[in-house]
Amino acid sequence: MPRIQLLNRVLASNDALAEEFRKQFDKEKITAINVMSAPGSGKTALIEKTVAHFKDKLGIFVIEGDIKGDLDAKRVLKAGGKVTQINTDGACHLDAFMLSRVLNKVDYKKLDLLIVENVGNLVCPAEFNLGTHYNVMLLSTPEGVDKPTKYPLMFSKADLLIINKIDLMPYVDFDFKALEKSLKLIRPSLEIIKVSCKTGEGLSDWYRWLTDHIPQTARRKPRNSGKRKAHSG
Amino acid sequence: MPRIQLLNRVLASNDALAEEFRKQFDKEKITAINVMSAPGSGKTALIEKTVAHFKDKLGIFVIEGDIKGDLDAKRVLKAGGKVTQINTDGACHLDAFMLSRVLNKVDYKKLDLLIVENVGNLVCPAEFNLGTHYNVMLLSTPEGVDKPTKYPLMFSKADLLIINKIDLMPYVDFDFKALEKSLKLIRPSLEIIKVSCKTGEGLSDWYRWLTDHIPQTARRKPRNSGKRKAHSG
Repeated sequence: MPRIQLLNRVLASNDALAEEFRKQFDKEKITAINVMSAPGSGKTALIEKTVAHFKDKLGIFVIEGDIKGDLDAKRVLKAGGKVTQINTDGACHLDAFMLSRVLNKVDYKKLDLLIVENVGNLVCPAEFNLGTHYNVMLLSTPEGVDKPTKYPLMFSKADLLIINKIDLMPYVDFDFKALEKSLKLIRPSLEIIKVSCKTGEGLSDWYRWLTDHIPQTARRKPRNSGKRKAHSG
Repeated sequence: MPRIQLLNRVLASNDALAEEFRKQFDKEKITAINVMSAPGSGKTALIEKTVAHFKDKLGIFVIEGDIKGDLDAKRVLKAGGKVTQINTDGACHLDAFMLSRVLNKVDYKKLDLLIVENVGNLVCPAEFNLGTHYNVMLLSTPEGVDKPTKYPLMFSKADLLIINKIDLMPYVDFDFKALEKSLKLIRPSLEIIKVSCKTGEGLSDWYRWLTDHIPQTARRKPRNSGKRKAHSG
């Protein structure tokens, strides 16, 4: 079978499975986000802050995707999160099949927000639908502003772009206007939030975005999750 | 055909073609390097500096690999280099087949050093042999020291690790001893050079490494390439 046909078949069965997840998430009133970026942009740092901020208000579960190891899962656990680890064993992205192997660890009834941290990669993760509602993309200031032009698929699929490491702005060349200009060609309406996970600057904007995009927030009472037992897969 | 078998067949035919390139490079006494890193680590900045430093001493040609666009090729051209662009049109890595489409633009007789800049990606490029002699890998300080543990294949295949953006060391958490510790498990003998392409610090160590690894340097006379015409593919 030619490669391209095979790839299309793989993507089609991935999409079908992702669609099933999506229906389940919607039925259970769960908001699911897929967090993507290059390696080292600060996905885990953002998730640590998010878990620490919301853990007593929302039911949150984090799925950590890494090629190897569980460094990030341990960080989320330490921040007070419930988390499980997927090791892709060399694969450069998460797909719906990998997700299906860990979703049985998630208690949907207690869940408001499912956070999936994808493998650090600006290319392949954008190709695989995980059934999540929003793609939250990070770009850190030291990476530079040429990334939308060079990795257009990832940016074109983002629902929110978080510019992280703004504390480094004085020391790096990061021309925000040039970034906006190149984004206009790829994803004109893309919402942008600037943060520093290190200093905390801008994180309140992210928390507000997240709250606005979790429709059940207003409907559910705050959870007393202080004693919630942490999982690690 | 199962995916894994298909992948193995693709890799085997890639390796065979790469082996042909290698024989040609050796026959023509050309040193070829494959420059790999995450997006935004500074591959192009390193190549710009390298071209500017060596262009009057060595015959250099640069192959720029990007998913889309020719931003990096234009930068190399501006630095005085001969360059051609490969656009992978979505593919997350370069392979030998892509290289075969541009190698006909290279005048082997005038060449000492072939520099291939791979797609910015810490995963997939490491899987594809390009026939080059050395894998030169970059890690920039803002990316953090957990990368060898999370992307072991790339680090295990590196012949040289360049730590870039050391000018940012005072502003980021980069524990060099922790990096060395994790590298010991994956690539114990990996040589490391610390540089800042921005300030120029450490670049002389890189130029020395390169000179030491270009066996023909001593044998050939310096070239008068000041008037060399630049190519752009």
